[in-house]
Amino acid sequence: MSQGTKDTITISLDAMGGDNAPASEVAGAVETVLSHDGINVILVGDEGKISGELKKFSFDNSRIRIHHAPDVIEMHESPADAIRKKPNSSLVVGLKLCRSGESNGYISAGNTGAVMAASLFTLGRIANISRPTIGSRFPTEKGITIVFDVGANVDCKPVNLLEFAVMGSVYADHIYGIDDPTIGLLSVGEEKSKGDTLTVEAHELLEKSGLNFVGNVEGRDILKGSIHVIVCDGFVGNVVLKFAEGVLGILKSKFKDYAEQGITRKIKAGMAYGTLKTVLKDFDYQEYGGVPLLGVNGVSIIGHGRSSPKAIVNMILRAEQTARAKINDIIAAKIKNIKEFVPGTL
Amino acid sequence: MSQGTKDTITISLDAMGGDNAPASEVAGAVETVLSHDGINVILVGDEGKISGELKKFSFDNSRIRIHHAPDVIEMHESPADAIRKKPNSSLVVGLKLCRSGESNGYISAGNTGAVMAASLFTLGRIANISRPTIGSRFPTEKGITIVFDVGANVDCKPVNLLEFAVMGSVYADHIYGIDDPTIGLLSVGEEKSKGDTLTVEAHELLEKSGLNFVGNVEGRDILKGSIHVIVCDGFVGNVVLKFAEGVLGILKSKFKDYAEQGITRKIKAGMAYGTLKTVLKDFDYQEYGGVPLLGVNGVSIIGHGRSSPKAIVNMILRAEQTARAKINDIIAAKIKNIKEFVPGTL
Repeated sequence: MSQGTKDTITISLDAMGGDNAPASEVAGAVETVLSHDGINVILVGDEGKISGELKKFSFDNSRIRIHHAPDVIEMHESPADAIRKKPNSSLVVGLKLCRSGESNGYISAGNTGAVMAASLFTLGRIANISRPTIGSRFPTEKGITIVFDVGANVDCKPVNLLEFAVMGSVYADHIYGIDDPTIGLLSVGEEKSKGDTLTVEAHELLEKSGLNFVGNVEGRDILKGSIHVIVCDGFVGNVVLKFAEGVLGILKSKFKDYAEQGITRKIKAGMAYGTLKTVLKDFDYQEYGGVPLLGVNGVSIIGHGRSSPKAIVNMILRAEQTARAKINDIIAAKIKNIKEFVPGTL
Repeated sequence: MSQGTKDTITISLDAMGGDNAPASEVAGAVETVLSHDGINVILVGDEGKISGELKKFSFDNSRIRIHHAPDVIEMHESPADAIRKKPNSSLVVGLKLCRSGESNGYISAGNTGAVMAASLFTLGRIANISRPTIGSRFPTEKGITIVFDVGANVDCKPVNLLEFAVMGSVYADHIYGIDDPTIGLLSVGEEKSKGDTLTVEAHELLEKSGLNFVGNVEGRDILKGSIHVIVCDGFVGNVVLKFAEGVLGILKSKFKDYAEQGITRKIKAGMAYGTLKTVLKDFDYQEYGGVPLLGVNGVSIIGHGRSSPKAIVNMILRAEQTARAKINDIIAAKIKNIKEFVPGTL
């Protein structure tokens, strides 16, 4: 694992993206420069609104600057339309800064579909990657498990799953320091014959890839944390991700119902819930600092619309780390080698 | 909702199916006849082993009989091979009793794939149903949500999802007493344009079906319990089901880690865990009494390999209820009407 250089990294931040923009974005940017050296931030968006928020803080002015971008893409807009009709949106301009080299990485808590589409359109793809992917780290019993894809590609071919495996493997290695990460293929049974047409064919490719492929895994294996990278099409990945996000909600709701069944239960539930919250902090997606969009020619990190300042800090740090590790160069080399080696994948 | 007649219902039970067979199966059968009128049980399997277990209990001998079936299908066997090579297995013979009318319904806690395949092979399909489906009730914040399909069909066409919706709707109505159940299509976004090719096309059919179709739902909606029947292909349904089954495991594991961080935390975790177990009894799949295989010409209920006697009782009661409700006749009439009405589905 390479740590990269200690040169300053500049991150362009879509300051108008999240539900609480630009307040969360500005607070997160300031918190980052106050607590970390070697990272500068360009806040992209409405200059007036951003400077209004920035005035609330004191910090080293040389490390944060504003890049005015007047258009705002709303959550409900069609990604393709929005990008075409609003070239001066913070979402798109932040990416252009990344493409031109003014920034080394980009983050946004805006409309996920729009950020993906604009990233692909503005930054282009890594050679030999036909579909970029977004990955998400899941809470586990122990260990790190990242699932690729969780929503970028709903209709996949077997070669796409091979590409996700390569990108996921490089990411787990160079971002999480996992040497030769294990790769699992999400399916409905452990035997290689189990699965739908897509997974049965993808299994063949993964077996030949030279990756540390451990075979099929099942839904419950995501939570065990014994596999580093689990690949699946973006439809099933997205359904499971959103299901997982709903688990905290049902626990809260069940505790509330229990507490309403009398004073003793109310006291017990109150005590238990505090413990539960501590125990389940891994289910809090704010901890993870966004999901990486891998396969585009640049660093693009996508955050939850409800990103807090803390989540913004974590996203900036993740973008910095990803830029320093130069993982796109590593992905490009690795996918080229594997595709030349596995028949029918080029 | 029809309650059917009060004639005695006979259930044939694969007594050799589960991990703890025939002890759990025999105990469950005895418990059922001791606590419920109007249900007789045929225990199918190794006569010596079954009678050895039966001797431990006292009950009305006229209500439980043994039907000898010497072969046993193991969990690891290929379903298709096992059914062909072992026509005298308890799994297959129990179904033959159902086909011949000696029993009104069948339950097994054996290999799910083998039970599905044998049920389809032995009982045949309901007219106009191209693919039978297994549904699973999920724990929810409140209300009943059943997901179809959770593993019978990994590669689906849009018309299969329409069929699942019809079967699920009839089941929710006549088994759970839900009048005109709401139907959701599991996808990656609420808009009808969101999803993979399968769901986008299935959406069109469901809109025209005359069912109480509420549109696309997402992974988190499964846990909310606001939709009665959610349809999806069996690949994604199975992944989510197994993921959900893993949630209790990760909670236990996190509590254990927390408890190991000092005596105060140990006490807190102990108190909280008791509450949590009560709160989360909905996550205990033993409560639900197996999953129905719908679309076959008979009543077939499939249980978890680890089914306890209590789970066996619940499965027998579910089979009885399903037989009394004559839901296959209702499904046959409803699917015929809908297919004649929706272009391209016959």
